[in-house]
Amino acid sequence: MKNIAVVLSGCGFKDGAEITESVSTLIAISATGAQFKVFAPNKNIEATNHLTGQPDGLRNILVEAARIARSQIQPLEDLKVDHFDALVFPGGFGAAMYLCDWAEKGAQCTVDTQVESLIRKFHESSKPIGAFCIAPVLLAKVLGTFEVTLTVGDDKETISEIEKTGAHHEVCKVNDFITDRANKVVTSPAYMYDNAQPHLVFQGVQAAINELVEMA
Amino acid sequence: MKNIAVVLSGCGFKDGAEITESVSTLIAISATGAQFKVFAPNKNIEATNHLTGQPDGLRNILVEAARIARSQIQPLEDLKVDHFDALVFPGGFGAAMYLCDWAEKGAQCTVDTQVESLIRKFHESSKPIGAFCIAPVLLAKVLGTFEVTLTVGDDKETISEIEKTGAHHEVCKVNDFITDRANKVVTSPAYMYDNAQPHLVFQGVQAAINELVEMA
Repeated sequence: MKNIAVVLSGCGFKDGAEITESVSTLIAISATGAQFKVFAPNKNIEATNHLTGQPDGLRNILVEAARIARSQIQPLEDLKVDHFDALVFPGGFGAAMYLCDWAEKGAQCTVDTQVESLIRKFHESSKPIGAFCIAPVLLAKVLGTFEVTLTVGDDKETISEIEKTGAHHEVCKVNDFITDRANKVVTSPAYMYDNAQPHLVFQGVQAAINELVEMA
Repeated sequence: MKNIAVVLSGCGFKDGAEITESVSTLIAISATGAQFKVFAPNKNIEATNHLTGQPDGLRNILVEAARIARSQIQPLEDLKVDHFDALVFPGGFGAAMYLCDWAEKGAQCTVDTQVESLIRKFHESSKPIGAFCIAPVLLAKVLGTFEVTLTVGDDKETISEIEKTGAHHEVCKVNDFITDRANKVVTSPAYMYDNAQPHLVFQGVQAAINELVEMA
């Protein structure tokens, strides 16, 4: 039985994990017969009202991500690399604001130390890593020196920043994915295409997860 | 092009719409080629911390449901029956606490007046209605006198209450659904099976949505 660790950054695309990408990830993993556990940083952030776009008070990433995980969730610090065969980061602005500060600093960003350590350890152990939407920038920043190949779709500005890290970018359709077999990295653009249809996001995520679990 | 109205009751199974059921609904509708619009009541409620189960302050159902709908959402009062071919209620405790008060009163519950009016109008217009998890109790309460047939899985206590409304209950597996062709009602149990695997919930919801869209 393969065990997959999924790291969420909250609950909602404006200040956390993109919900359709997160749910598609969990559906796709369970459909392969693999097991998953969900993790999130225990960190307070300023929430965003998803109706108005305005600030909405402090919330905790772990507490909010528990909504997606049906309360079956653990703090990120409890994620032990030895217990898992693969690691997955769904997207959403949470990945670019709270797992790193790419949203503000692009290629000059700093990655959360726990997140950076996990990416390095899974990579060193030759265990596959998946990332969707904007989350591949985490892999670009940490694994850029390994010339990792990945996708965030076709957004020129993000691609230009990614290439500054040493990573290679490949343009990819919403319902497809890119595999870097040498680095065991699988990525799919998902809602980097802002108006994507949900079933095409699901197709891309599911195809990527199937590849990830096969490699795990 | 068929248009489907989806009514959410928040964002998270303990105090709102069950997230996997809601996302599965939107993926399944878009996969059929139909369009959807998402609605939710503009109503403040006491939120529940999904990590601890404790009260977590006031939140607004419409604002929270906007997280699932990626901000593309309207107040329930703007849902015009003439604009849609079918109506869907994903589950979660929000459906049993805020679309009606079944969670407290069972078969003696009162259904929110907007929700009751919508169910009656779609039914009178012979437009199909879908409901998942605990949400079929809304249809039992409003359409019990029409002897509607539906499922909430195999939970004896809920089934016993449902039968007091005049509705018929059929036991159903998590990845299957029940159709009442006379009343054009389609239901699937989803997370009424508390520990269900996400891909089986998705299978049940998708199969039910395919049936609903075909009848629409």
